[in-house]
Amino acid sequence: MKRADLMQNIAILGASGYTGAELIRLIAVHPSMRIAALAANSKAGQSMAEVFPHLRHLDLPGLVTIDEIDFSGIDLCFCALPHATSQEVIAGLPKDLRIVDLSADFRLRDPEAYAKWYGNPHAALECQAEAVYGLTEFYRDDIRAARLVAGTGCNAATGQYALRPLIAGGLIDLDEIIIDLKTGVSGAGRSLKENLLHAELSEGAAAYGVGGTHRHLAEFDQEFSAIAGRPVKVQFTPHLLPANRGILATVYVKGDPRKVHGALHGAYAEETFLEVLPFGQVPSTRHIRGSNFCHIGVTGDRIEGRAIVIAALDNLTKGSSGQALQNANLMLGLDETAGLMAPPVFP
Amino acid sequence: MKRADLMQNIAILGASGYTGAELIRLIAVHPSMRIAALAANSKAGQSMAEVFPHLRHLDLPGLVTIDEIDFSGIDLCFCALPHATSQEVIAGLPKDLRIVDLSADFRLRDPEAYAKWYGNPHAALECQAEAVYGLTEFYRDDIRAARLVAGTGCNAATGQYALRPLIAGGLIDLDEIIIDLKTGVSGAGRSLKENLLHAELSEGAAAYGVGGTHRHLAEFDQEFSAIAGRPVKVQFTPHLLPANRGILATVYVKGDPRKVHGALHGAYAEETFLEVLPFGQVPSTRHIRGSNFCHIGVTGDRIEGRAIVIAALDNLTKGSSGQALQNANLMLGLDETAGLMAPPVFP
Amino acid sequence: MKRADLMQNIAILGASGYTGAELIRLIAVHPSMRIAALAANSKAGQSMAEVFPHLRHLDLPGLVTIDEIDFSGIDLCFCALPHATSQEVIAGLPKDLRIVDLSADFRLRDPEAYAKWYGNPHAALECQAEAVYGLTEFYRDDIRAARLVAGTGCNAATGQYALRPLIAGGLIDLDEIIIDLKTGVSGAGRSLKENLLHAELSEGAAAYGVGGTHRHLAEFDQEFSAIAGRPVKVQFTPHLLPANRGILATVYVKGDPRKVHGALHGAYAEETFLEVLPFGQVPSTRHIRGSNFCHIGVTGDRIEGRAIVIAALDNLTKGSSGQALQNANLMLGLDETAGLMAPPVFP
Amino acid sequence: MKRADLMQNIAILGASGYTGAELIRLIAVHPSMRIAALAANSKAGQSMAEVFPHLRHLDLPGLVTIDEIDFSGIDLCFCALPHATSQEVIAGLPKDLRIVDLSADFRLRDPEAYAKWYGNPHAALECQAEAVYGLTEFYRDDIRAARLVAGTGCNAATGQYALRPLIAGGLIDLDEIIIDLKTGVSGAGRSLKENLLHAELSEGAAAYGVGGTHRHLAEFDQEFSAIAGRPVKVQFTPHLLPANRGILATVYVKGDPRKVHGALHGAYAEETFLEVLPFGQVPSTRHIRGSNFCHIGVTGDRIEGRAIVIAALDNLTKGSSGQALQNANLMLGLDETAGLMAPPVFP
Repeated sequence: MKRADLMQNIAILGASGYTGAELIRLIAVHPSMRIAALAANSKAGQSMAEVFPHLRHLDLPGLVTIDEIDFSGIDLCFCALPHATSQEVIAGLPKDLRIVDLSADFRLRDPEAYAKWYGNPHAALECQAEAVYGLTEFYRDDIRAARLVAGTGCNAATGQYALRPLIAGGLIDLDEIIIDLKTGVSGAGRSLKENLLHAELSEGAAAYGVGGTHRHLAEFDQEFSAIAGRPVKVQFTPHLLPANRGILATVYVKGDPRKVHGALHGAYAEETFLEVLPFGQVPSTRHIRGSNFCHIGVTGDRIEGRAIVIAALDNLTKGSSGQALQNANLMLGLDETAGLMAPPVFP
Repeated sequence: MKRADLMQNIAILGASGYTGAELIRLIAVHPSMRIAALAANSKAGQSMAEVFPHLRHLDLPGLVTIDEIDFSGIDLCFCALPHATSQEVIAGLPKDLRIVDLSADFRLRDPEAYAKWYGNPHAALECQAEAVYGLTEFYRDDIRAARLVAGTGCNAATGQYALRPLIAGGLIDLDEIIIDLKTGVSGAGRSLKENLLHAELSEGAAAYGVGGTHRHLAEFDQEFSAIAGRPVKVQFTPHLLPANRGILATVYVKGDPRKVHGALHGAYAEETFLEVLPFGQVPSTRHIRGSNFCHIGVTGDRIEGRAIVIAALDNLTKGSSGQALQNANLMLGLDETAGLMAPPVFP
Repeated sequence: MKRADLMQNIAILGASGYTGAELIRLIAVHPSMRIAALAANSKAGQSMAEVFPHLRHLDLPGLVTIDEIDFSGIDLCFCALPHATSQEVIAGLPKDLRIVDLSADFRLRDPEAYAKWYGNPHAALECQAEAVYGLTEFYRDDIRAARLVAGTGCNAATGQYALRPLIAGGLIDLDEIIIDLKTGVSGAGRSLKENLLHAELSEGAAAYGVGGTHRHLAEFDQEFSAIAGRPVKVQFTPHLLPANRGILATVYVKGDPRKVHGALHGAYAEETFLEVLPFGQVPSTRHIRGSNFCHIGVTGDRIEGRAIVIAALDNLTKGSSGQALQNANLMLGLDETAGLMAPPVFP
Repeated sequence: MKRADLMQNIAILGASGYTGAELIRLIAVHPSMRIAALAANSKAGQSMAEVFPHLRHLDLPGLVTIDEIDFSGIDLCFCALPHATSQEVIAGLPKDLRIVDLSADFRLRDPEAYAKWYGNPHAALECQAEAVYGLTEFYRDDIRAARLVAGTGCNAATGQYALRPLIAGGLIDLDEIIIDLKTGVSGAGRSLKENLLHAELSEGAAAYGVGGTHRHLAEFDQEFSAIAGRPVKVQFTPHLLPANRGILATVYVKGDPRKVHGALHGAYAEETFLEVLPFGQVPSTRHIRGSNFCHIGVTGDRIEGRAIVIAALDNLTKGSSGQALQNANLMLGLDETAGLMAPPVFP
């Protein structure tokens, strides 16, 4: 049913990782996109069926190196490369190519903040200058007009969905925000690390990146401070769960819980993918798995003036590849929700 | 984009179970179907958001009792009810209503076989007489013309995909077939049983329904004997795995492995959903999760004249609700694959 | 090797639940205890091998009703019964029988607090008056002399291990304590509830008992207020994890992180089962699974004056049955660690 | 309570792997053994608390290289090294040192069989000549007298427990044996392989080593042929499960099921660790987890003359480190069951 002349040609760089595979999964049933090129330098020459057997039924181009791609026919390019690599690659791509980057490389507007959190000076400052921060619901117009969109951190997206309207509305104490976050393992990618082995990870839980050291804090700092008009620093403790997908952010704030709920409900009333639950209900990562939806719940506490906001989304979908596709839809003038309306997979 | 006048009105009876929810998940993005009525007697009055929060973003009709549904506007009705209940309900539905039944009630053509395996005489023999067995790829023409289609058992489907072409081709010893099957837990439904608790099930494995007692044997007997033109009895031992979705059937046969592979490859060359892997490769349930695809691998053994056929499918999708939708597409004259092309969800 | 004349005779009431089974697992290799009677009213007449096949190799008494037990030969009785039931049963037991109760019935010293949190007036106030709160390391002398010891809540134990020395030492802001807790599913017992099914629970995470409603708050209130000498109310949000065993409590406090670490390290230096990790390290529930050990880690935060204390223990062992056995050892004049030194099971 | 003068000094080579850690877990509560040296060449200089935090409470020697160990004071040495490495190391150890090897290096008596299955000529044929095959229940007397005992493959042990008495008794067709085996992931060790990542493994199942290629077949061939007095070749298909521990072997044989049950029941009547269930019952890996017990069930089939034997054991305990300790007990003249009677951990 797809009409070839109306189809947008898509390239994906870094197609052998989980976010690359997730992009292909989503685009495979997208009404207006066609995958024209797939690059994965370390696996060039292989077929996607070898690298990701769950995609074997698709008629996909084989994996090539980035250099082998002719970008002249590409309408939009997703970069699902590791950070640091991404900025080098993007600096060398055609200057008129629409790009959605899923790495951390273009999220921070301040080069000094980038250098501080990532440990190296930025290698593509020119590109960084034109990059738009890709939290779709809050940068929609900029994204529509952008050439380069920087996908957000998956944890950063979750926390921001819970908090932005509250900070903007002046509803909470800005110096008393705690984000206790639980994440599935696919956020760490397909890397061979001992702590990601099934035998090391299943049937247990632990924190990591404690003490205010996780790099997604840089995004919280940038965005929350910009909204508040003054520096805002949150506490953020991520935990690794024995689950493949899903982020659950439990956010502790000081403010009136009913007003907090009202602000979130109002802010997201027209948003397709952001569902604010009735007051007192809590979301579960099970109920958004594999989808682009984000569920947000608000409760009060027995201690007056405290509210708990809990947000759940799928790190691979709404937290990265789904967000990237949503942004690509905007950049290409397509329906923002195209290819993203499949319900979560439960159980 | 859906044009209301071309949309088929769908009713689902038994919408509070896993196969009901899976039907809704699939139909939610089907281009030509609209969910017009949802029944669940025990939860009538509730919304689907209460029963299945992962579907909360959908604009669905509330749950009602079956009696409350006006079937005059319904184009096709899915029955996702428990067996025994299903036959009673279907006996009372309009005689011209297209029905896809997901229960065990209309799978067996021989009433005596039904009574033997299910322990009660059949209560709707008239309906049974017109029911078509719903293994799509092998009953496609009958299904297209049918009013009532009986969905297969999920285990029965998996075993048949592995074996039917081999029996039809006279390639294997009919008296030496062993199906060692591993299944995820959602096949047992949303029922409150001690052995289905997370604490009882996770991190372990065990057989159940051993010794030739599992009811899906009745389907194997019926189908394989019909193909062979003489009684065929297989051994079948199911095992329960700590996974929510997925069936892996490891089938041991006596025959030439290359011919076995060739027969399966040939039989399914034109089938969209049945993927025969290159000889020697093995499928994984991870690679078909949440999808309507079935992966089939064939290997030989160091003992000459032995072949191992391994088939993997998702019990809730290709094993029940996806199959049901595929059949409904045929019955309504739609594209057989409509709503079913979403790739598997991995990881 | 066990010498019969030195063996203590043990009865377990409620032997068909998880804490009952855990007691048997531990006592089976205890050098000075012998299981003399096992009661489970709903399963009386069955063998333990039927109820818990993992115990089938043990030579255990069959399950009987509580009434059938002759308590005259029993040295100590564990009550692993549901709350409310426990107080009725214990009221009827011999007044000189040593009892360790694992239910919630005797944890709260204030009858009004009990009635408020549990919704019914207490039915055995006389027994409650003599009950000692069973947090071993803090009530050791009282427990040694007690006839009736009330096991703590598993979550309550975890939070107290993280916080008691800090409150006692005046090291943290008493009005700003947040306990974000993650727990495995066995804490909910062997009950048939939809949310405890594998298909509902695996591969996901969600909060429950939110908003200051969880009953273990009553224990926090009682204990922390007693230590501080003034009312202390904490925030406490439990989350259910896809794991069978293990509690991880992430506790956010305001205080000097090094002093916090020092206080915990000092308080537990002589404790066999409480391991304080080097500053900056975090514990994992994987590393205490199946054991009576509790690991505690302390980190600072980039925001000065904030500390994060993370405590991990096994809810079935150190959180209930292991604690109960540790207390029983004290009550019987045995080595406190007898039967409890088996290392955690990893992976 | 341990008396130092009666304690056996134990060395463990390869202490940084899962079987090494399992040995330490078991020996930590062994009444007559003391861990005197721990070697792990790649992690020499580290403490066990760093490598395996679950063992942090133990007062263990630090990790050293093998060369650093003074074997003169060692009573028995466990080698938990990778195969190929093990033979080289053992060839260089003192000739009078008692050794229990957990690798594959000394399991096969025929050097040609070794070379065929493992792809290299054996480097320590002299040692191989004196090695005793470590399937305790069947080589007890030889093990008692041995200097070097070769631990069995974990899958090989499971299959042999199911089959040896049947082959010895002439009860089954020797040319029609099929072992369909399901194993947890810890059997693959702590190695960094993509297919062992949580994201790749959880919530799914697949076969591996298909077609008669798995090296444990060499052990089946050797042992079953020796018992039968003629060549016996079985079919063996292992599957990887989303669980950390546990092997379930479903064995299909032709023979009278009652006689099969009787033979196993009779053969193991006096065995502490081998539990034959009542006829018709099936074992579960959940019910032996973390223990040295093996549960075996037998059922018939609706097809006369077929029997199904299902055996379950923990690959890390009865399948390797528990077996090794059982053998070490025999070699040192200790109670065979010392340190091995802890019940399984459930749930």
